[in-house]
Amino acid sequence: MLNLSIPSTRVGSFIQNPKSPFPLNPQFCSPSTIKHYAPKVFIGHSIYKGKAVLTVDPRPPEFAPLDSGAFKLTKEGFILLQFAPAAGVRQYDWSRKQVFSLSVTEIGSLISLGARDSCEFFHDPFKGKSDEGRVRKVLKVEPLPDGSGHFFNLSVQNKLINMDESIYIPVTKAEFAILISAFNFAVPYLLGWHTFVNSINPEGTAGLNNANSRSGADLEWSR
Amino acid sequence: MLNLSIPSTRVGSFIQNPKSPFPLNPQFCSPSTIKHYAPKVFIGHSIYKGKAVLTVDPRPPEFAPLDSGAFKLTKEGFILLQFAPAAGVRQYDWSRKQVFSLSVTEIGSLISLGARDSCEFFHDPFKGKSDEGRVRKVLKVEPLPDGSGHFFNLSVQNKLINMDESIYIPVTKAEFAILISAFNFAVPYLLGWHTFVNSINPEGTAGLNNANSRSGADLEWSR
Amino acid sequence: MLNLSIPSTRVGSFIQNPKSPFPLNPQFCSPSTIKHYAPKVFIGHSIYKGKAVLTVDPRPPEFAPLDSGAFKLTKEGFILLQFAPAAGVRQYDWSRKQVFSLSVTEIGSLISLGARDSCEFFHDPFKGKSDEGRVRKVLKVEPLPDGSGHFFNLSVQNKLINMDESIYIPVTKAEFAILISAFNFAVPYLLGWHTFVNSINPEGTAGLNNANSRSGADLEWSR
Amino acid sequence: MLNLSIPSTRVGSFIQNPKSPFPLNPQFCSPSTIKHYAPKVFIGHSIYKGKAVLTVDPRPPEFAPLDSGAFKLTKEGFILLQFAPAAGVRQYDWSRKQVFSLSVTEIGSLISLGARDSCEFFHDPFKGKSDEGRVRKVLKVEPLPDGSGHFFNLSVQNKLINMDESIYIPVTKAEFAILISAFNFAVPYLLGWHTFVNSINPEGTAGLNNANSRSGADLEWSR
Repeated sequence: MLNLSIPSTRVGSFIQNPKSPFPLNPQFCSPSTIKHYAPKVFIGHSIYKGKAVLTVDPRPPEFAPLDSGAFKLTKEGFILLQFAPAAGVRQYDWSRKQVFSLSVTEIGSLISLGARDSCEFFHDPFKGKSDEGRVRKVLKVEPLPDGSGHFFNLSVQNKLINMDESIYIPVTKAEFAILISAFNFAVPYLLGWHTFVNSINPEGTAGLNNANSRSGADLEWSR
Repeated sequence: MLNLSIPSTRVGSFIQNPKSPFPLNPQFCSPSTIKHYAPKVFIGHSIYKGKAVLTVDPRPPEFAPLDSGAFKLTKEGFILLQFAPAAGVRQYDWSRKQVFSLSVTEIGSLISLGARDSCEFFHDPFKGKSDEGRVRKVLKVEPLPDGSGHFFNLSVQNKLINMDESIYIPVTKAEFAILISAFNFAVPYLLGWHTFVNSINPEGTAGLNNANSRSGADLEWSR
Repeated sequence: MLNLSIPSTRVGSFIQNPKSPFPLNPQFCSPSTIKHYAPKVFIGHSIYKGKAVLTVDPRPPEFAPLDSGAFKLTKEGFILLQFAPAAGVRQYDWSRKQVFSLSVTEIGSLISLGARDSCEFFHDPFKGKSDEGRVRKVLKVEPLPDGSGHFFNLSVQNKLINMDESIYIPVTKAEFAILISAFNFAVPYLLGWHTFVNSINPEGTAGLNNANSRSGADLEWSR
Repeated sequence: MLNLSIPSTRVGSFIQNPKSPFPLNPQFCSPSTIKHYAPKVFIGHSIYKGKAVLTVDPRPPEFAPLDSGAFKLTKEGFILLQFAPAAGVRQYDWSRKQVFSLSVTEIGSLISLGARDSCEFFHDPFKGKSDEGRVRKVLKVEPLPDGSGHFFNLSVQNKLINMDESIYIPVTKAEFAILISAFNFAVPYLLGWHTFVNSINPEGTAGLNNANSRSGADLEWSR
């Protein structure tokens, strides 16, 4: 029951529908004339330690179409943390893995965490549902006593299956710096702000300048 | 008169003209041969609090064509802040929203704001127009007393409609870190510097090196 | 002799040859089948003050073709600083402009400059040429006495035309933060490191893994 | 035996197979209909000093195809450091070059290195092989006594060829800032996280929202 491979994820559903994962800028060549194919890539970044492994990877935001033909972001993306305990030398027991999805704001806490700071997040996966309160997840990030990094501790109490698990993993200052660098890269995409880039174009906006452009009164920007 | 949806914006005009929002690199496939379609995406990032909501999203720079066929940036982009007061549990009164457009330099103030620093911006949407002075907007960003973040306070005094509104919203250190990360992402696009990327190409510049390239005297760069 | 427009630059030569400025990723659609057109965009970011204006914009690196068909970066890009003295209210005398090209390492100095630090760069545009020593340029960046930002001072002594000019411009902490943000964005492009992105591809590298890939002895990376 | 040119690298193998280095987003136009060609570009950034030169450049991650048609990252990219001793004025002896491949975590150490901090990495290129222990490489990065930067010292002890080499190069604060800026740019690509961008698309995800999307129980993200 032990495996070292990257655990499969929900994104597997994309694979069965190869046309779904459109590229970032699908407008370059229209779908009807040229076939797109962006293969799913598993990019979990792992921190392997003696007692556990921590794998992090970003998950995309979700959008919904509007009647106007535009889209709106309906759910911000997140960073999925996956913890698995060790089960031997360089072997980890993925069947006992525990997951924790860092929201954008929780990412903000980690990004701005000082070397001596700690933070703590609480999640209830069934909040607002009938099983609310049956599963409690607490992620604590605390400085190591010697200042060489932080401890990540995920505790999961699941009354539904009578399970109580706590996984600790020390993350060095260097490893933490990479997490922060990767998180900082991911944030604009989790917010969907990369789509902003598509709205900027010298040729596209030039013709609109004297037409139905910003009214000073609306955006109070006439300086 | 209450609604939770993202307020519609001027960019709606783009939607009626689906060819306008050219992609970032319109040159990949010429407009005449392949139809482009970059749908408008609403990407306001919101900070919801008990008394108010703050939504931020970037707005693109503007360009004008030159006789040479080139373009020049005529107006830098900005970050639009939208404040709306609460009108119940998780309900916000967008009909009473107040907006404030952060210029690039004002973004610089926020990006470089220390944990204990404050800053204040003043806007007159009608500056230089007949109604100058009739509307005063002041955005104050001040540290929370307990050091856990900053208060954003937008005060709008509008003598034209006898309105005086002041909206406060506390922004935690984590939320502020995400704003800074997103603002840092946006700055190069607000400046139009992303178009610089298009001017770099190994193949394109190689042939020009010995021709009409930089004169040392002009750019003083002969080291 | 006064003008407020962006000064024309060497890149104008690109315009006469519309096929030259290939996009970043010219390989998406081959030049022979689809016509590319990336218009030149003037993106100088200006800091306007009472006595002078400072305009900054990035200039691309240069590449040379190798016999193998590959390319090598032959000259890193730089940031061009243009200073012009004021000649009235919101009028600047571009005929008296002085320029200074910040090398990548000089950009590194500015990026890492503390709030109370100063730095100084010296350029001789004719270094190694017959007129060496006839023109001296010194750029000093010094903290403002009240800690609110930095002074940029460009002094140019040109013995060839008996000219001695010194232009001062105060740059606030907020304006400096935007310069740093923009410079940080530009650095990878000035180094040509953005072309690295093109060498990464799941599909492209997968087939090469077991073939003529890295030898452990050569790159000492067998852990 | 001296040469100033960029040393040739393993990537030369790409050149013989011009179709291999697919661009970042090969899906824009399918390979079967339009021929891609992303030329290899040598982008080593060099720090030249009196006694030695240090050249740094990023090397891509590796991927393997899965049965599902997806890919997984099998090896993170790295930064290759190449040290060569001086052999005269502005001449470096590349035949005596020593290389050191910085892993992502080691990059994290450098990125988070304080002005007064030092770090040390040890590599055995033959670890786990029959020649394990015969070659020892130690890279030390230590603050310069006057605080003006850091010393990079690479020591290589090779018992296989009875070689013992140690190369020192001082790196100023400004030069270090550029390394950090470039490393920060590279990190997401070394992790393969840039492929995450392709999994985000308003049009692509919109249709999937009500179908086989995230289960709250699996990703505990139902807030």
